[in-house]
Amino acid sequence: MNILEERILKDGIVKEGNVLKVDSFLNHQMDIDLFDEMGKEFKRRFADKPINKILTIEASGIGIACVVAQHFHVPVVFAKKAKSINLEGEMYVAEVESFTHKCKNNVIVAQKFLSPDDHVLIIDDFLANGCALQGLIQIVQSAGATVEGIGIAVEKGFQTGGRSIRNLGFQLESLAIVESMDAKTGKIVFSEQ
Amino acid sequence: MNILEERILKDGIVKEGNVLKVDSFLNHQMDIDLFDEMGKEFKRRFADKPINKILTIEASGIGIACVVAQHFHVPVVFAKKAKSINLEGEMYVAEVESFTHKCKNNVIVAQKFLSPDDHVLIIDDFLANGCALQGLIQIVQSAGATVEGIGIAVEKGFQTGGRSIRNLGFQLESLAIVESMDAKTGKIVFSEQ
Repeated sequence: MNILEERILKDGIVKEGNVLKVDSFLNHQMDIDLFDEMGKEFKRRFADKPINKILTIEASGIGIACVVAQHFHVPVVFAKKAKSINLEGEMYVAEVESFTHKCKNNVIVAQKFLSPDDHVLIIDDFLANGCALQGLIQIVQSAGATVEGIGIAVEKGFQTGGRSIRNLGFQLESLAIVESMDAKTGKIVFSEQ
Repeated sequence: MNILEERILKDGIVKEGNVLKVDSFLNHQMDIDLFDEMGKEFKRRFADKPINKILTIEASGIGIACVVAQHFHVPVVFAKKAKSINLEGEMYVAEVESFTHKCKNNVIVAQKFLSPDDHVLIIDDFLANGCALQGLIQIVQSAGATVEGIGIAVEKGFQTGGRSIRNLGFQLESLAIVESMDAKTGKIVFSEQ
């Protein structure tokens, strides 16, 4: 069991509707020492990849991505969820459906920050149905850049996102894969890795 | 001249309407080594303060806050701009007007992450009219916590936000204070610090 799985057992809370709350250490309050350990582990798992950029998506992916980036010594680009008047010039756009917020967002990255020379590690906090991740992959591919790997903190293994993306041939590494969880008992079971 | 000021002169772009674009290193693509240097400088400027938590606001404050936090060895909490169905329980709320996006947002922090025991350093990327910052200060004070200081990357010194907040007695440290900028010539002048 790794440090993130241990922390989820200690501080994660299972709610009705397959909601796993990890807001005390991952996506509202953020434990930076934990992120640093996660960064070390991602570096180990993607050690052989020529990664020169990390891509994530606002908001809760950004903190993890920035601390992870220190282990790769590369810049981070975050995809934005809405058009800002300060974001001018050509942009890569993907439409992403959010189950949490019950809405569709355009996810955008300025074209000048992704090029065919880029070898990208995608980082995000959660993977469930995979919609956000598919949007990020689409953006990388629109740029002619290469997805070298995908690093996720928590994957809901009982939803289909992870399987779809692995089936497409991507190296997807999730530090904690929740196989099942029970809101009544609070029990969380992880997949063996 | 510090490392951030040098970088703004090198890569910042002045646009009409008092817009300073720093999206190639600060708030869309993020230079993590630069953030680390900024963290060292904030640590130096707030060395005597008993800071046990950093508060920032999504999205572009998060990356800076997380890297800065490594120099203080404290967790980061980020205020969210919209109500999420996963954010339950009691929340501190402040209304913040965004000039960039021409709208008002509720900014929220779960009450469980701020208490009277907290000594908070507020971190953000930009300070112009100070609306977002005033919202964050209001949230800290609602919790009965203490604002130990405010660390900003880029302050527009020709707008009133910084003066108002310093007049209220807060230790506000901006790494680069733009005194004037000219979209025609591209010239940027910083205040002496």
